Amino acid sequence: MQKKEFNVTPWEVEGKVDYARLIKKFGIKPLKELPDIFMTEVLFRRKIIFAHRDIQRILEAIKDKKSFVMMTGLMPSGKFHFGHALVVKQMIFYQKLGAKIYIAIADLEAYNARHKSLEELKKIAINEYLINYVALGLDLKKCEIYFQSARSDDSKKSNAYYRLASNFSRYATFNEFKAIYGEISPGKMNASLLQAADMFHAQLPEFEGKIPVLVPVGVDQDPHLRIARDIAKRYKDNKFIQLSSTYNLFFPGLKGSGKMSSSDETSFISLTDSPKEVERKIKKYAFSGGQATVEEHRKKGGNPDIDVSFQYLKFLFEPDDKKLQRIYDDYKSGKMLTSELKNYLIKKINDFLKEHQKKRKLAKKQIDNFMLKV
Amino acid sequence: MQKKEFNVTPWEVEGKVDYARLIKKFGIKPLKELPDIFMTEVLFRRKIIFAHRDIQRILEAIKDKKSFVMMTGLMPSGKFHFGHALVVKQMIFYQKLGAKIYIAIADLEAYNARHKSLEELKKIAINEYLINYVALGLDLKKCEIYFQSARSDDSKKSNAYYRLASNFSRYATFNEFKAIYGEISPGKMNASLLQAADMFHAQLPEFEGKIPVLVPVGVDQDPHLRIARDIAKRYKDNKFIQLSSTYNLFFPGLKGSGKMSSSDETSFISLTDSPKEVERKIKKYAFSGGQATVEEHRKKGGNPDIDVSFQYLKFLFEPDDKKLQRIYDDYKSGKMLTSELKNYLIKKINDFLKEHQKKRKLAKKQIDNFMLKV
Repeated sequence: MQKKEFNVTPWEVEGKVDYARLIKKFGIKPLKELPDIFMTEVLFRRKIIFAHRDIQRILEAIKDKKSFVMMTGLMPSGKFHFGHALVVKQMIFYQKLGAKIYIAIADLEAYNARHKSLEELKKIAINEYLINYVALGLDLKKCEIYFQSARSDDSKKSNAYYRLASNFSRYATFNEFKAIYGEISPGKMNASLLQAADMFHAQLPEFEGKIPVLVPVGVDQDPHLRIARDIAKRYKDNKFIQLSSTYNLFFPGLKGSGKMSSSDETSFISLTDSPKEVERKIKKYAFSGGQATVEEHRKKGGNPDIDVSFQYLKFLFEPDDKKLQRIYDDYKSGKMLTSELKNYLIKKINDFLKEHQKKRKLAKKQIDNFMLKV
Repeated sequence: MQKKEFNVTPWEVEGKVDYARLIKKFGIKPLKELPDIFMTEVLFRRKIIFAHRDIQRILEAIKDKKSFVMMTGLMPSGKFHFGHALVVKQMIFYQKLGAKIYIAIADLEAYNARHKSLEELKKIAINEYLINYVALGLDLKKCEIYFQSARSDDSKKSNAYYRLASNFSRYATFNEFKAIYGEISPGKMNASLLQAADMFHAQLPEFEGKIPVLVPVGVDQDPHLRIARDIAKRYKDNKFIQLSSTYNLFFPGLKGSGKMSSSDETSFISLTDSPKEVERKIKKYAFSGGQATVEEHRKKGGNPDIDVSFQYLKFLFEPDDKKLQRIYDDYKSGKMLTSELKNYLIKKINDFLKEHQKKRKLAKKQIDNFMLKV
């Protein structure tokens, strides 16, 4: 028996991912029995967010109306695409439930990888990323957004943050980094320690103090969480509440393998693509679960489970469960053709983008104000 | 032919040190032809500071009356002893020549090694170290003194400093650390990178801007300088002026082997030891170059070059070159006995300490003011 091989690391996702095996390998837990409010968000309703560690204390905080932090990061490189939208939807969801949103802009990492100045990266972070966050519905006023290169304009906070990353280094070993990441350089190690500080520093007295922190990630990012959890467990100077985390399926790249990634032009649709560009990309690249000919398709039916257009409807563009189910059935039975499915998706995306462009213009003003402050 | 073995690393000095071999091994240069002003300081006059890297640009700055930085660090652990006084004498010397003195208090390192709180370490740094600096003659107003755990109360400066340490990590490799230090852990690596930032950050626009920096060290500390120099050479974001450094002989421990160290009680005299304690330590521990009996000593003479009491006179307690030469000759010829040499030293030290205790009381006031500001 031959098993399809796949490879999932924080830097690479290859092959057909077996999520059940990942759950076992990483030691994360399937996500079930969520409160009703979670069912208003398709990402939970459709089990696109499918696993967790220690979610319980976030559910308790929500139930008891206690505050909690949702922590995430962004790497200011390339285009903001629909794969990025998954975490933004979660920010908005948790913000409405009362979470304070922490957003770390990983400009130090981007700086070293991309050979752009910190000033340029700041502009990309704001004009390409944050503007889309706002247009999608994030309320910047209820966020704490910071650059790794300059944590705060309050020196007490800055010092505490960098001190934490530095102290974390004493609680880690090279073997641990090697075991979890496979390979490691001083730069990567440093980035990992800074990331651990990102995830835990909200709990320091200089920030929120004792507070549960939720980190929603794509499942490929779990190694970062394992390192951070292990270090924090051993850390003596502050008693941290262990992180909670959730894991989402990869938003598929256009060609159906791996995840949507801004480093592969033929894998993504960005939120500034024109209607023509969207149409071209879907028609040309979107991997189809249909048959080779219309006749064959009518007879045998298509496979929506591997069809990228169907997946995009499921992840983002068809909020109506009944309609989605009908499309699923019709495509599977052969009643709906690949061209029909693609046209349906193209219209959905372009309708969305038309509205989104308007919202981006409104967002621009908020962003300009924000620019002045950071 | 058997060679005496010795071992010199930043963490350990063992055996009889062959300085000529160290100069060759480390690639540093013998120090010669210094301007006249340097001859006012016995450490230079007596070649206790014996080697350098790139001293020329400091000499030029002094000649042209341009500003420069002298950078040093202190580890707030244990007692302030006479070995520590060498660098303080240099601070005072360069301060009079117009240098701005940067002092990094390595509390993060001490914190991890000594299991004391940062608050306790701060008190040790101030009440045990800085108070002695001031009593010895350092002008705190012309110093920039900071804790590694909290670089500045100006967030622009704090952020720039920690950013530099973080960015430096991308320019180093594990092999380099291994080659230079022999063994390395994430904590040690992090400490080394922070130390490199200590040495170079004065040149950032947030601090002094382009300015030559002198780092005077014991020769065992050269590995830290080599790492810092190599990283800065490759660093692209800021064009650093390469560090200048000078190297001093080890201030010998009482028992004559290795250097005076606060981790070995029988190796040091602290600046708060009582007259009785000084007498006891010199008589009991100070390694003698004399002969076994008075008669033999009178006949064969002693060896001042290995006699610890003579070395202490040479390093710190006998400013008069002629007197020192006479003692050298008399001890060597057998005219002066070990007991006489020791008694002479004990009186010198206790006279010094009596004055120093008075100065410490005056220093206390300055320090209390300083305490309020940091």
